[in-house]
Amino acid sequence: MRAVTFQAPGVVAVEERPDPELIAADDAIVRIEASGVCGSDLHIFHGRVQIEPGFTIGHEYVGTVLAAGDAVTRVAVGDRVLGCFQTACGTCFFCRRGDYHRCEQSRTFGHGAALGALQGTQAEKALVPHADLVLRRVPEGMSDDVALFAGDVMGTGFHAVVESGLRPGDVAAVLGLGPVGLCAVQAARAVGAAHVFAIDSVPERLAVAASFGAEALHLSEQDVRGAVRAATGGRGVDVCIDAVGDPKALDSAIRLTRACGAIQCIGVYAERADVHMGLLWLKTLTLRGGQSNVIGHVDRVLAMMSAGLLDPSPLVTHHMTLEQAPEAYAVFDRREALKVVLTP
Amino acid sequence: MRAVTFQAPGVVAVEERPDPELIAADDAIVRIEASGVCGSDLHIFHGRVQIEPGFTIGHEYVGTVLAAGDAVTRVAVGDRVLGCFQTACGTCFFCRRGDYHRCEQSRTFGHGAALGALQGTQAEKALVPHADLVLRRVPEGMSDDVALFAGDVMGTGFHAVVESGLRPGDVAAVLGLGPVGLCAVQAARAVGAAHVFAIDSVPERLAVAASFGAEALHLSEQDVRGAVRAATGGRGVDVCIDAVGDPKALDSAIRLTRACGAIQCIGVYAERADVHMGLLWLKTLTLRGGQSNVIGHVDRVLAMMSAGLLDPSPLVTHHMTLEQAPEAYAVFDRREALKVVLTP
Amino acid sequence: MRAVTFQAPGVVAVEERPDPELIAADDAIVRIEASGVCGSDLHIFHGRVQIEPGFTIGHEYVGTVLAAGDAVTRVAVGDRVLGCFQTACGTCFFCRRGDYHRCEQSRTFGHGAALGALQGTQAEKALVPHADLVLRRVPEGMSDDVALFAGDVMGTGFHAVVESGLRPGDVAAVLGLGPVGLCAVQAARAVGAAHVFAIDSVPERLAVAASFGAEALHLSEQDVRGAVRAATGGRGVDVCIDAVGDPKALDSAIRLTRACGAIQCIGVYAERADVHMGLLWLKTLTLRGGQSNVIGHVDRVLAMMSAGLLDPSPLVTHHMTLEQAPEAYAVFDRREALKVVLTP
Amino acid sequence: MRAVTFQAPGVVAVEERPDPELIAADDAIVRIEASGVCGSDLHIFHGRVQIEPGFTIGHEYVGTVLAAGDAVTRVAVGDRVLGCFQTACGTCFFCRRGDYHRCEQSRTFGHGAALGALQGTQAEKALVPHADLVLRRVPEGMSDDVALFAGDVMGTGFHAVVESGLRPGDVAAVLGLGPVGLCAVQAARAVGAAHVFAIDSVPERLAVAASFGAEALHLSEQDVRGAVRAATGGRGVDVCIDAVGDPKALDSAIRLTRACGAIQCIGVYAERADVHMGLLWLKTLTLRGGQSNVIGHVDRVLAMMSAGLLDPSPLVTHHMTLEQAPEAYAVFDRREALKVVLTP
Repeated sequence: MRAVTFQAPGVVAVEERPDPELIAADDAIVRIEASGVCGSDLHIFHGRVQIEPGFTIGHEYVGTVLAAGDAVTRVAVGDRVLGCFQTACGTCFFCRRGDYHRCEQSRTFGHGAALGALQGTQAEKALVPHADLVLRRVPEGMSDDVALFAGDVMGTGFHAVVESGLRPGDVAAVLGLGPVGLCAVQAARAVGAAHVFAIDSVPERLAVAASFGAEALHLSEQDVRGAVRAATGGRGVDVCIDAVGDPKALDSAIRLTRACGAIQCIGVYAERADVHMGLLWLKTLTLRGGQSNVIGHVDRVLAMMSAGLLDPSPLVTHHMTLEQAPEAYAVFDRREALKVVLTP
Repeated sequence: MRAVTFQAPGVVAVEERPDPELIAADDAIVRIEASGVCGSDLHIFHGRVQIEPGFTIGHEYVGTVLAAGDAVTRVAVGDRVLGCFQTACGTCFFCRRGDYHRCEQSRTFGHGAALGALQGTQAEKALVPHADLVLRRVPEGMSDDVALFAGDVMGTGFHAVVESGLRPGDVAAVLGLGPVGLCAVQAARAVGAAHVFAIDSVPERLAVAASFGAEALHLSEQDVRGAVRAATGGRGVDVCIDAVGDPKALDSAIRLTRACGAIQCIGVYAERADVHMGLLWLKTLTLRGGQSNVIGHVDRVLAMMSAGLLDPSPLVTHHMTLEQAPEAYAVFDRREALKVVLTP
Repeated sequence: MRAVTFQAPGVVAVEERPDPELIAADDAIVRIEASGVCGSDLHIFHGRVQIEPGFTIGHEYVGTVLAAGDAVTRVAVGDRVLGCFQTACGTCFFCRRGDYHRCEQSRTFGHGAALGALQGTQAEKALVPHADLVLRRVPEGMSDDVALFAGDVMGTGFHAVVESGLRPGDVAAVLGLGPVGLCAVQAARAVGAAHVFAIDSVPERLAVAASFGAEALHLSEQDVRGAVRAATGGRGVDVCIDAVGDPKALDSAIRLTRACGAIQCIGVYAERADVHMGLLWLKTLTLRGGQSNVIGHVDRVLAMMSAGLLDPSPLVTHHMTLEQAPEAYAVFDRREALKVVLTP
Repeated sequence: MRAVTFQAPGVVAVEERPDPELIAADDAIVRIEASGVCGSDLHIFHGRVQIEPGFTIGHEYVGTVLAAGDAVTRVAVGDRVLGCFQTACGTCFFCRRGDYHRCEQSRTFGHGAALGALQGTQAEKALVPHADLVLRRVPEGMSDDVALFAGDVMGTGFHAVVESGLRPGDVAAVLGLGPVGLCAVQAARAVGAAHVFAIDSVPERLAVAASFGAEALHLSEQDVRGAVRAATGGRGVDVCIDAVGDPKALDSAIRLTRACGAIQCIGVYAERADVHMGLLWLKTLTLRGGQSNVIGHVDRVLAMMSAGLLDPSPLVTHHMTLEQAPEAYAVFDRREALKVVLTP
């Protein structure tokens, strides 16, 4: 089969790779009909996340079940399915607490040996372990472009909103309007945020956020703190979602959030940082970080997408074929695309 | 001043009554500019809830602060305010837990000596004890017709939804589409219910529910259980709100709700009832009942109304003057009105 | 192998039965070293719960893993284990929400075809499906008499306390002091209940409850309501656990519980009942019922047992051999025993 | 009256000061019968927290109500009471959410003009604003030494445990065994922590922690991380309470806590700090900081103290008279005392 593989920093290729085969009783094989290119794929593309040359990449996917092991009961051959970006066993310490994102045996699609040696989904077919937890049937009438988001980007935005503790009637701020930040904006509105500030410096992204119901604020050209203060009686937002992942964003989050409020970091932190602990403490803030529990939220995300309450399709800016993957990565790398969908 | 008073079952009058005066340091006097007629006023009108002849009735109100005691700090003379239907002290066992609706010293406007001897708000002026907790400033640009709902009907519908434990992406059912049930429908959608079944037998009410985003089902002319089963893979709804308050409704709620789901009773139960405890137990249900914590939720309700996420104004079917109160009660009693707003 | 089987109402036998064999990849075979006789076994014994003659009964067990399928990873051959009374798949709608007790494929040991046709554990060996979720290793140093309770009776008492919403410093009441009620008493104290009323009419059970730190009250010989009122400023208990399961107990629970409090029914309700909905509504109570989520709580129960915070061993009144099972059932049926442990 | 006043860094005096007088309708005057010297008093003593020379200090107190304004209803003249270290209004944005510690009008006893200009309680008498929220009756039979802790040190330790999200059966670690840390140790056990690691480098404090049921670990002389790993299957503790308040402690907390666990900072942070955000993010941790909600927890703390589940009296190492205050501060400053109680 054809598959997109990492070759070297800056170089991906479309190669012939062996077809996947069922191994465990709860495995499935999926014929991939649409696969997304994601911000985390760029980390691999740039060599910041190191994987083996020749490894198939990609982890967002919609397709049809071609084969399933004896223990698979929730999906069947022929079902149109979408999948989550990582697997979970369902029985370890973390899975038993519902923290599927911290599964002791978790494997992430397309991230090389370090994250479980599970070949990616930018390919014609993919092996899906623990299929009953990782796959879901696509609800009737849902397009590939929408379904694709449930198992990664929208799942992450939704997780951020729900885990932040945002309550109906709250005021939220989202820092950073990449696809995940924009999904968080949409999710915040859909669960009853009375007001959402969406903050970035790219006009196109601010425009999308505004179309999702947010008050868009340009990071440097507008008075962000003044606008937040004016809307909140000087208190600050109830909840701030940091979808950037650098110390400056965290600093802004600490300043923009009201006393007893919460900051949810979905932007990736990988290093030590200078944090204003004094202010965080004085304001009695809660700070949460880390990867999202996409498996734990995917049913809700699908239900809300199906009802039209969440609709990430405006984020899809490009459709290309699998064979055009090198071009797709180039376009994405130049930040000309928000989401590229690859089809076979 | 002029005030609407209860005279005898079926008889209300507009009479001259003495102006209210400040008593405690945290009292305020409000000039009433709009007052609603509510389903609970009908219980008084019919004599089912007994109050003293000559007592001023009404408990939904918007107006302007005319006077305030020394200890009042959250509102000031001249502020346009709305109020909650009952008072809370802020310091008792229940208030300290945020359960303002169970305040040990709670008084309800316009319900006679039994509920605290607090004259009602269908009048030109009203005394408001504990003004800092009971009153809120009307957000700029909000009409009387909208603001009026925050302190009673929408507060109750919102409470029902939030306290039911409904989570984003859930499927809900609302039984009974009076004003409170309709507000619950709207609130459920606003906080992310993926699907709301709205069930009643009055076509006009079903139409309003549908306009609020619900799937309207006629209680007797449609297959309610079949529709719910079809939409939920046979499981039943996650959350059912009983806005009726009789054993038949409760029975339906128990049957319509999925295992481990929740039933929230906002319809009033006053007597013993035959309840299918066996089914409730077998399905591991949670059943909650009782009056709503309107003071505890009013800030959120106002924020969502202000953002346009909640808009009860379609429920206002009639505007009349205070002097027309006898006619207003007659119209309401004939079920020709959903909400009548009285102005001076 | 030898096994205790149901023959007819009032008759159990110890018979020769075929050894269990592994079927699915996630099955295990356990050599049973201790098995309990439980209140629910009595329902079968009396014919109230109907199962097929010749079916092996029992569902509380400790033993050693004799064999395990390829997919079993959490326990290994040779491990000393305890098990839960029912199985869960880990992947269905309910399991994905952590509601393992409502698993769509749940099977209960020793309850005949109606509950999944899974042979019981009052036998020399037992087949354990979904072994990774159903079994746990016995913590070092824990006796069979203690471990046996984790997967059923203590799991149920602990669930009742935790799910009731009891918070540290609360006052609780437990109605009915069978083994489950007594475990609830102990669990309530262990999680910080400041005061626990334990109510029954059997002096021996009241004495055990007192030894567990409760204030024991004789149902008919003491003024239960007066004692509760005196201890709670007239308000009633924060949480009431109904471990009886009949309408009279529920009525008491509704009367003993304070406004905004919670009632948790672990006693089994199987039929319709006359419930004081008026009082429940007036008091704004929460009522929850149903089987317990033992799989969801077993890790915590084991940790607390291991730390000595929970110790059900005083409830074991009799040890007998498997061959003495008919006598064990007779003793238990005469209410001479709280817990009988059978060993091979 | 006699009162302990701050004079200059390192100098406190016992002076004659005017008796307090009722000002607002919800004020009370309390005759102080016991007052504690607290770690935060040392910050004032050392000049790190700056207050006006001549200002009365102290904020832990037990006494008798001498006078009360008209609006005070929860306590009466002659009642033996204890008080919280800060006041709350009960009606602002934060109080309405139960976040009394962030009251917009909060005043702290004995902390000078910066924290509300409220004279301290190391005096013969004290003015207590908002008495219905700030004061509680001392439960019958409770000693001054115990009651004194409810409104500050034990309230803080209990808050840390409860707000951390610790659940029954969890493993906790407490870093720093000053009075607050030791109270957190005791509270963690009382609400069902299966295992508590208590970490410090002062042998006497480790001994007290051990007597409270913790596994005491010497910070530098024992292998703390090894011990935690061994007890948690290599995962780390579920909850870590940082009662130190410096970046090294926070670093340890991040390392000792398991994935998806929580860190509660009750030790004071006042400045920026170098925080391992990468590790925090990788482990999906929750970090909370800030002052404790003592008013929100004081009822529960008193109930548990009254039941003997919490007993801070072993922390009282010294009793002195008010006139000996200068000596008390000297002893406390030399770390010879855990808690000094001053009586008139």
